[in-house]
Amino acid sequence: MPLTPEQQAEIDAQRATPRPTLRAVSEGMEAHLYKAHEVLDHGFVRVIDYMGDDSAIVQAARVSYGAGTKHVSNDEGLIRYLMRHWHSTPFEMCEIKLHVKLPVFVARQWIRHRTANVNEYSARYSILDREFYIPQPDALAAQSTVNNQGRGEVLTGAEAERVLEILKADAGRSYDHYEEMLSQDGQQGLARELARMNLPANIYTQWYWKVDLHNLFHFLRLRADSHAQYEIRVYAEAICEMVKDWVPFAYAAFEDYRMGGVTLSSKAVDCLKRMLGGEEVTQETSGMSKGEWREFQAALA
Amino acid sequence: MPLTPEQQAEIDAQRATPRPTLRAVSEGMEAHLYKAHEVLDHGFVRVIDYMGDDSAIVQAARVSYGAGTKHVSNDEGLIRYLMRHWHSTPFEMCEIKLHVKLPVFVARQWIRHRTANVNEYSARYSILDREFYIPQPDALAAQSTVNNQGRGEVLTGAEAERVLEILKADAGRSYDHYEEMLSQDGQQGLARELARMNLPANIYTQWYWKVDLHNLFHFLRLRADSHAQYEIRVYAEAICEMVKDWVPFAYAAFEDYRMGGVTLSSKAVDCLKRMLGGEEVTQETSGMSKGEWREFQAALA
Amino acid sequence: MPLTPEQQAEIDAQRATPRPTLRAVSEGMEAHLYKAHEVLDHGFVRVIDYMGDDSAIVQAARVSYGAGTKHVSNDEGLIRYLMRHWHSTPFEMCEIKLHVKLPVFVARQWIRHRTANVNEYSARYSILDREFYIPQPDALAAQSTVNNQGRGEVLTGAEAERVLEILKADAGRSYDHYEEMLSQDGQQGLARELARMNLPANIYTQWYWKVDLHNLFHFLRLRADSHAQYEIRVYAEAICEMVKDWVPFAYAAFEDYRMGGVTLSSKAVDCLKRMLGGEEVTQETSGMSKGEWREFQAALA
Amino acid sequence: MPLTPEQQAEIDAQRATPRPTLRAVSEGMEAHLYKAHEVLDHGFVRVIDYMGDDSAIVQAARVSYGAGTKHVSNDEGLIRYLMRHWHSTPFEMCEIKLHVKLPVFVARQWIRHRTANVNEYSARYSILDREFYIPQPDALAAQSTVNNQGRGEVLTGAEAERVLEILKADAGRSYDHYEEMLSQDGQQGLARELARMNLPANIYTQWYWKVDLHNLFHFLRLRADSHAQYEIRVYAEAICEMVKDWVPFAYAAFEDYRMGGVTLSSKAVDCLKRMLGGEEVTQETSGMSKGEWREFQAALA
Repeated sequence: MPLTPEQQAEIDAQRATPRPTLRAVSEGMEAHLYKAHEVLDHGFVRVIDYMGDDSAIVQAARVSYGAGTKHVSNDEGLIRYLMRHWHSTPFEMCEIKLHVKLPVFVARQWIRHRTANVNEYSARYSILDREFYIPQPDALAAQSTVNNQGRGEVLTGAEAERVLEILKADAGRSYDHYEEMLSQDGQQGLARELARMNLPANIYTQWYWKVDLHNLFHFLRLRADSHAQYEIRVYAEAICEMVKDWVPFAYAAFEDYRMGGVTLSSKAVDCLKRMLGGEEVTQETSGMSKGEWREFQAALA
Repeated sequence: MPLTPEQQAEIDAQRATPRPTLRAVSEGMEAHLYKAHEVLDHGFVRVIDYMGDDSAIVQAARVSYGAGTKHVSNDEGLIRYLMRHWHSTPFEMCEIKLHVKLPVFVARQWIRHRTANVNEYSARYSILDREFYIPQPDALAAQSTVNNQGRGEVLTGAEAERVLEILKADAGRSYDHYEEMLSQDGQQGLARELARMNLPANIYTQWYWKVDLHNLFHFLRLRADSHAQYEIRVYAEAICEMVKDWVPFAYAAFEDYRMGGVTLSSKAVDCLKRMLGGEEVTQETSGMSKGEWREFQAALA
Repeated sequence: MPLTPEQQAEIDAQRATPRPTLRAVSEGMEAHLYKAHEVLDHGFVRVIDYMGDDSAIVQAARVSYGAGTKHVSNDEGLIRYLMRHWHSTPFEMCEIKLHVKLPVFVARQWIRHRTANVNEYSARYSILDREFYIPQPDALAAQSTVNNQGRGEVLTGAEAERVLEILKADAGRSYDHYEEMLSQDGQQGLARELARMNLPANIYTQWYWKVDLHNLFHFLRLRADSHAQYEIRVYAEAICEMVKDWVPFAYAAFEDYRMGGVTLSSKAVDCLKRMLGGEEVTQETSGMSKGEWREFQAALA
Repeated sequence: MPLTPEQQAEIDAQRATPRPTLRAVSEGMEAHLYKAHEVLDHGFVRVIDYMGDDSAIVQAARVSYGAGTKHVSNDEGLIRYLMRHWHSTPFEMCEIKLHVKLPVFVARQWIRHRTANVNEYSARYSILDREFYIPQPDALAAQSTVNNQGRGEVLTGAEAERVLEILKADAGRSYDHYEEMLSQDGQQGLARELARMNLPANIYTQWYWKVDLHNLFHFLRLRADSHAQYEIRVYAEAICEMVKDWVPFAYAAFEDYRMGGVTLSSKAVDCLKRMLGGEEVTQETSGMSKGEWREFQAALA
């Protein structure tokens, strides 16, 4: 359970007293506010605040394009048009603030997305909790034999058991030692900023992460993708569920044009034209490398 | 008057129907929402949306610094501490979205602050209105004789009259010609994206500008400063009035540590120490250049 | 002629004395250094400095992916792989610094690309030169009748003549008045920061613009595109010529995957599969809007 | 020793063959290129590439300020002027690319500086080396008793020994288990992206880090400061030594105005004026909090 009773009580209190506002309100997002959506064994993601809704995107676009937007008769159509033509600035007019609890090795991937605001719990100032990510058996995958960054089959039997044993035992021992080093019982106690170096990358940290919708979509496209590491993908998927309720038109356009979309090279487009013209095209006659051809076929399979 | 009756009616409508929200609400900012604060002769700035309040800053800081923040007993003290020690990330947790109408030459200065989101009215798609900034007589300043980027005395008499005549006549004529070139009466009409090149830099444009509080403070420090050009400073000052009502603790800390603060070089600190020790220090014995010494004296005058 | 004899002499001097360096050197780019590539009637773009080459991209990728990159046997293949899979960070390891002279209305579009460093000539400090962009006859296009941001046919005859007359006369008169207002002959002289407001958007400005290769490619994809305004596209095309000589492998991958590439929505992919399977698909049976269908057909025409 | 003989040979080779370039060359930086400056027990920082020198800063400023810069007669004076008045864009015209090997907990602090380009060694793709940071005895500090983020006295005797024992043993065991989990001897071998979660935060990683001079100065001001954690400060200090040789004028200005400078609040400035006027000011009469007063006194001590 990722939340303590105190934390749950705090969330309930935050959800108890609506206040009037003149700002744009997204009913779909109000239903999510503050609630912790559980992810992995001890993690969560929850919305702390948001700015804007589908209408805010449209409103900003109409400022930019003025009379130029009038031929698109409705909000959904305009949002689809903006997404299709890579007009990103109207989507930047929406903002979201999340509170995320996540393993450190996931946080290290996540932070590579630089266009966001972050306040992370500081292990220099404070003491981390004894919480570690231990994969579920079905997430305990072997190294892929064909892909350097991929996963293969799920481990089973003695190998799986041994791996779980190691992860649990090492995490527990590292944390015991962390506490011992910090302890001031009969000793000075090592500085927190040093003691933390003993903690493994599956310990949980937490942060506030604030990002605009355009950059969030970019994050989701990469991290909710099937090639993303499972442990960050589950966070991205949880966020997708919230965004869908927050800005339904924008999310639908994102799904159609980005998540489900395909980018073809000029070589691939040439092949397609030949194929549509009835020609049989093979990798040899395509001008593509084997890797490109494989990806091209997969995209149209 | 910068607003049309239609625009005013739209603002009234937006302010008429509060809706319930579970988000943080700043009462001070709700009072400003959508209202146009007039700036210059046809400009305005108005808040379209905001995220967070003073408590949101504190909340983010307590996530970061955990137990480490407990020794600062109250929100105001913590906010002052964060500002004093350049802990900028908690201030990034607040966000504001403004609608600004402003002359193009002001917009050109403003856009140099890159860490913000912008949707500007596009003169490629749409036709600009016939509105130009013409300075009030007391803003009609001569070139400074001591400072390349400064203003000297106010122009008067025939020179002032002539300048105002030129500005008005050239703006009017340029706009007439803009319309004539665009016109399709008996002709094809020049493309908007080309016709706009005839318009002078005092024509008004407008945009949505969204920025986090940390970067807004950076903007305000530079643009509400007495060295900023008057025509952008009045916008910055109007924004200051809103921010003061939005996040009163943060704004007070900003005023004390940034706007009213002074940065001294190590040479200046050395001089100060000598002066506090009773020594008479002159520019010659200070180790500073004439310019530095003048600024040092002004800071402590 | 965009350059004065003094400027040309300075460029010749800069090109006269090579110095030894241990850094990565791109022969193709050395040939361009400092030279002014003329653009429009008075503009230019020239490379002032660069960092890295194709090998620098590969080197950074191999740091990131370590042994994981070894299965891609050569540099060109790895660069194509990185481009195809949106691995953008290795491309960020190259940097370029340009000196550009361009009309203000082009600069206003250009600056919307925020992830770059800019030092623009300041009309607050200094006096602008009397140089304006006047389109060539074949660039004098009518407003498109089908596209709010597009151009239609080229203007001819009396309409064309009148437009050119207006642009020339208004620019000249505005500049004369600018000078008169600044003048201190028998008067104080208006502050430069005010006088500039009388100048039209086709006056030339100049700046140093520094950007990494990833963000430059993003700029080029949008601005060297056929939908970009002609007056910025010619700058983008001039830059393309330099980039091709600087990082030939990266540029070729960019051309294949970005400039010549096509992004299809999931709806479009579905249609394609049906079409490849022999089905006759029409707009009505495609699930796409008319606009989408038109663009889809154009992409595969 | 942080470098293998192969790595050293590669560095020697890179330094062996200077090539001619027309770009700005900094002799001081050429002397550093590729060389590994050792930091901590296994870390290093080395310059891979750079763009610009002191003259490049001046050159960009003169484009911006045109004739306005002529009253500052020399390069050093102009650079000091720019630094003093927070004109940051000319400093952004210089760029540096570093290769850094550093413990993960240091990397986690470092990456918080977002305005930079990064390519980090990926433990998803590749296998990390068995190298851990183990502090020198004099860096083994106790938690500060007065400052949540600070260090107190150095640990000695049995406590110090025990801490070092723990750090070494846990790191070694974690790495053994990492290898065992990855091993494919008679088993499938856990995916690298999962196995890495067992590694502690003192394991070394490495990255290419590219940043402009303005943002580098910001990083150095915070991380070469005495309040920064020792383990990141030593990297910042090593970088300072290189920057000093690269752009000596800019670095001297940075030292005077930023590193050695002091920012005073408006309250502090008021106190100073009273003190210079002969008044005895105490914390009680200063209007400052105890913390502020203490810092104020320290700044002028």
